[in-house]
Amino acid sequence: MRFFSDNAAAACPEVIEALSAANRMDTAYDGDSLSRSLNARFSELFECQVEALWVATGTAANSLALAALCPPHGSIVCHRDAHIHNDECAAPEFYTHGAKLLVGEGVGAKLTPEAVQEVLETVRRDVHQAQPHALSITNATEYGLVYTPEETAALGDLCRRRGLRLHVDGARFANAGARLGCAPAELTWRAGVDALSFGFVKNGGMSAEMLIFFRPELAAATLYRRKRAGHLLSKGRYLAAQVLALLEDDLWLRNARSANAAAARLAAAAGPDRLVLPAEANEVFVRVSAAEAQALRDRGFDFYDWGPGEARLVTSWDSDPQAVAALEAALAAL
Amino acid sequence: MRFFSDNAAAACPEVIEALSAANRMDTAYDGDSLSRSLNARFSELFECQVEALWVATGTAANSLALAALCPPHGSIVCHRDAHIHNDECAAPEFYTHGAKLLVGEGVGAKLTPEAVQEVLETVRRDVHQAQPHALSITNATEYGLVYTPEETAALGDLCRRRGLRLHVDGARFANAGARLGCAPAELTWRAGVDALSFGFVKNGGMSAEMLIFFRPELAAATLYRRKRAGHLLSKGRYLAAQVLALLEDDLWLRNARSANAAAARLAAAAGPDRLVLPAEANEVFVRVSAAEAQALRDRGFDFYDWGPGEARLVTSWDSDPQAVAALEAALAAL
Amino acid sequence: MRFFSDNAAAACPEVIEALSAANRMDTAYDGDSLSRSLNARFSELFECQVEALWVATGTAANSLALAALCPPHGSIVCHRDAHIHNDECAAPEFYTHGAKLLVGEGVGAKLTPEAVQEVLETVRRDVHQAQPHALSITNATEYGLVYTPEETAALGDLCRRRGLRLHVDGARFANAGARLGCAPAELTWRAGVDALSFGFVKNGGMSAEMLIFFRPELAAATLYRRKRAGHLLSKGRYLAAQVLALLEDDLWLRNARSANAAAARLAAAAGPDRLVLPAEANEVFVRVSAAEAQALRDRGFDFYDWGPGEARLVTSWDSDPQAVAALEAALAAL
Amino acid sequence: MRFFSDNAAAACPEVIEALSAANRMDTAYDGDSLSRSLNARFSELFECQVEALWVATGTAANSLALAALCPPHGSIVCHRDAHIHNDECAAPEFYTHGAKLLVGEGVGAKLTPEAVQEVLETVRRDVHQAQPHALSITNATEYGLVYTPEETAALGDLCRRRGLRLHVDGARFANAGARLGCAPAELTWRAGVDALSFGFVKNGGMSAEMLIFFRPELAAATLYRRKRAGHLLSKGRYLAAQVLALLEDDLWLRNARSANAAAARLAAAAGPDRLVLPAEANEVFVRVSAAEAQALRDRGFDFYDWGPGEARLVTSWDSDPQAVAALEAALAAL
Repeated sequence: MRFFSDNAAAACPEVIEALSAANRMDTAYDGDSLSRSLNARFSELFECQVEALWVATGTAANSLALAALCPPHGSIVCHRDAHIHNDECAAPEFYTHGAKLLVGEGVGAKLTPEAVQEVLETVRRDVHQAQPHALSITNATEYGLVYTPEETAALGDLCRRRGLRLHVDGARFANAGARLGCAPAELTWRAGVDALSFGFVKNGGMSAEMLIFFRPELAAATLYRRKRAGHLLSKGRYLAAQVLALLEDDLWLRNARSANAAAARLAAAAGPDRLVLPAEANEVFVRVSAAEAQALRDRGFDFYDWGPGEARLVTSWDSDPQAVAALEAALAAL
Repeated sequence: MRFFSDNAAAACPEVIEALSAANRMDTAYDGDSLSRSLNARFSELFECQVEALWVATGTAANSLALAALCPPHGSIVCHRDAHIHNDECAAPEFYTHGAKLLVGEGVGAKLTPEAVQEVLETVRRDVHQAQPHALSITNATEYGLVYTPEETAALGDLCRRRGLRLHVDGARFANAGARLGCAPAELTWRAGVDALSFGFVKNGGMSAEMLIFFRPELAAATLYRRKRAGHLLSKGRYLAAQVLALLEDDLWLRNARSANAAAARLAAAAGPDRLVLPAEANEVFVRVSAAEAQALRDRGFDFYDWGPGEARLVTSWDSDPQAVAALEAALAAL
Repeated sequence: MRFFSDNAAAACPEVIEALSAANRMDTAYDGDSLSRSLNARFSELFECQVEALWVATGTAANSLALAALCPPHGSIVCHRDAHIHNDECAAPEFYTHGAKLLVGEGVGAKLTPEAVQEVLETVRRDVHQAQPHALSITNATEYGLVYTPEETAALGDLCRRRGLRLHVDGARFANAGARLGCAPAELTWRAGVDALSFGFVKNGGMSAEMLIFFRPELAAATLYRRKRAGHLLSKGRYLAAQVLALLEDDLWLRNARSANAAAARLAAAAGPDRLVLPAEANEVFVRVSAAEAQALRDRGFDFYDWGPGEARLVTSWDSDPQAVAALEAALAAL
Repeated sequence: MRFFSDNAAAACPEVIEALSAANRMDTAYDGDSLSRSLNARFSELFECQVEALWVATGTAANSLALAALCPPHGSIVCHRDAHIHNDECAAPEFYTHGAKLLVGEGVGAKLTPEAVQEVLETVRRDVHQAQPHALSITNATEYGLVYTPEETAALGDLCRRRGLRLHVDGARFANAGARLGCAPAELTWRAGVDALSFGFVKNGGMSAEMLIFFRPELAAATLYRRKRAGHLLSKGRYLAAQVLALLEDDLWLRNARSANAAAARLAAAAGPDRLVLPAEANEVFVRVSAAEAQALRDRGFDFYDWGPGEARLVTSWDSDPQAVAALEAALAAL
């Protein structure tokens, strides 16, 4: 019973089916009709004109976004626990050609304007320090919290005042959207977001993530950067097909709701004393002793320890209801 | 009737089926059993110990290979018509952090030891010039010629004498292998090859290419570089599954033979006078006037012009026999 | 008797004296009054508002200029014999983060609009090729020819039409200016030049070159890039002092005239049949047999062979008149 | 009365004189006899075989060293207050092509093995994180403390056990050496140091720093990297001359002792209550109220505030004894 990561979940049936359908097409790179429909499809979803590029990984989406928003001699503010800082083997540094990440603090991997301001104040305005050009936040965060539209907009305001671009790592953007029930626009461009890494892989996709630019002029160079990074797949239609299948009839939201609901059940079962943080998306962080963790594992539950005395439980679109119920019971019984 | 590129061919049924099968697994990145079987599977195929990494594109495979073989301050010898020089938007320069490509000449995008030697002689041995560290050849070449084991070994010898590493861009390695009928080892490590980009996408795959290191110690850093380039897919099992399906019962060779055979028929129909080069793999370059090209297009044949008065016809594993027969007839009737 | 290179000439007395004078100041980096006067001083010289940055080498000046004019995913057109292509160990590739150099042809390392056009036509306008963003020419060229204002302007026109920026490697800009007798503006911004590497080291300086931006907005990022490349010397006043000393009373032009005059004497002595190219600046390329070259060396003349049967003779501001006279006689007597 | 920075001090007379002497030589780059004598001269000083390269700035020395010790996909441990992290505009990231700096904590910018160990423990040993390849310490530190041979060796031991290379930023290595009175070898290779940025500019030089490799095989690639970074000056003899002049008769140590002595006098005058840290080299950090700071400035003393309620006083080889005495009196009278 797997609660390791949504990273490893299956691709959902609609996605598999879409791949077979795309198999009947024959145009290379992103010249096929599916890929060419993405700008329009995402512009509709976001209620504004966007440029929408597929890539194969969230790391690529994040890094291409940051390269578009920050020059090599600049710096990017992010949370100390940000995926771009901790889990991408310096991919942002590779794609930006050496920009620095400046890390801020905040509970649950979440940044406030004050926290960002504090980071900015450490930077002298002279050529001896890499000047901040962008802020990157993760929504939902690496600890399963969400930024509301208002919280995002407050950061967007700060960015505008300080001349920073704003990027959202949305590896679990669907989970945030499902939780908040607001229009995608509210969490992005209306709140001042310039670029979004919109995750599909954790949410029922197989190998397709989207990079969305809300300022289309930022996308032009990225088309070259994507190719030059080896991320322009020659059979890109299979990526477009996955994404379009997940957008169809809001499958992306339904999948995310399902994952969030499973997490909510686990959180409720664990109870407030065990919860390290509110489970706002599809991740639950619980306090468990080593013995308790072992007992859970002995009963067949797989998950990661997350620091001493804590465990991370991640649900996904395809979390087995029986496994969830079993873990619920086990947590309640601890 | 598509003769544009094998790049856009369908994924073959065995590959599609393998994706569905992989859907039942749940380990992330390259920790799944399929991905973990690749080293052994390719070691068997190549009759020696190799390290075998999946990536999503040939550009990524080539660039990661070159970054492993050449430092940022070095240079790489390749043919003027090499894909790495002309069609990857400076991806090798990105991945190597700025190494230079030094181009040599030769008919049909093929290099001889003499041609390589000529390039090497242009480089002074001082710190003012980026010293050559690697040679990269393409087999089959961008013009559909193959390097025999002997030809490859002659280049391998030169490399050893001059302290160069040898890379093969094998986007169409299957077509070369099918043509030559020799063991894969003969075209690679026995001939002095250090790293091979082994293409599967053009040959019935969907989104999986392999990077093979014949000197396993060269692979260690590449595992980090792959991640850092955003090429470590979180659901890598789907890439492994494609490749394993194509290796099964030599499907990769059967697919390639089929593509080669279609090309051979077109070449024969065109006749020696029209052929720009022998059609040794799955590409046919023919002399046609603008009027003739237009006439072919009017009859429904799609292909690229390739310089003035020449056209490129590419076949693939799934070239429609009726379309091939029709083009055969049309070429014969020109 | 040294005719190797102006690279190795002495620093002129005024420069040495200026260093001692600068020793009495005490502000770090480029905050001192000498450094701060450079923008105004060069704006006066060029008759327009410029940004003028010192660096320690021509390679740094060229590479910083190119990084300002071309993105990492772009390409730069230059002559096959350009110093940036042949003698800087891929420094432009380092500073631009991997842009490609596209080489054109032309007698005496000189490019014409037609030659540039020919290079541009090899580039397809798609994301698979690094698109040209800049042209870089060398004036005086690596073979001692000069671009007139008209020739430069013709290239500037082409650049404007094709959306390219124009850089001049002026390692021997003084020699070109001295030869042509025109205002520096004529050879630069009035002809469409965006950035100039203005050489002082070969012309009596010790360790100071200038990078001049004729579009001041291009300079902003370069201030950071210079620091980040380790080229913001903490005692920058010594660089500014050298340059200001050479500008004083047109010393830079007087030095260049002196070097040019010596070259002209050698060229005249060699005679038209031996001259490979006209000696328009301070380099003379002459046809000499191996025996003749040896005979000259036996008499104490030092110089480089420059390809089979040719020798390069370089004069400098401090060429010893007796040595020049001796070489004149020796050449005439060959 | 300047106590801003040793960065802005004058070049000492012996250095100026050496420049004039070098003016009589005429070999380019590092082929002159002065430059060629450096390996031997520094090997003698360090009592072992070293490779010794001049560069124009400490930032270049540090960055070239780090690029030799850490691959692009690696990380480098340093102190949070390290110059390489705070004052070089991401030059290490530029030269290493994007390696990450991992920062540790410690009083006075000094790292202990425990502090380094703590940083190392934050890094998981998987490909998702840039693995540590090097440790960089500054001796004397940015806060004027010194690492003793024993302290350095303890870090060297840790490095050996953990497979890290060890770099010392010795912008004020002379001050550390003068303070400790030990052989340079004790502070470097005998303690496990692989590369040293040996500063001369702050200590009476004009524009020459040295990069010393204690493992000569590490230097080979750096010769290319130096050129490619534009740091191979064509008249390098002037850099060598400065350094040789400072080595002559231990002038470097005499200059450093003089600066240290001035700092010691200021520290004694300030008294233990005002001292933020012991003044072990040539920097004194004192607690002063805003009013006190203003009062000092009103009397003609120039210095930087260093955080709220603290001031940094830096002495140099040429600190004016009268100014030092005046500041001594002023501090004592506060």
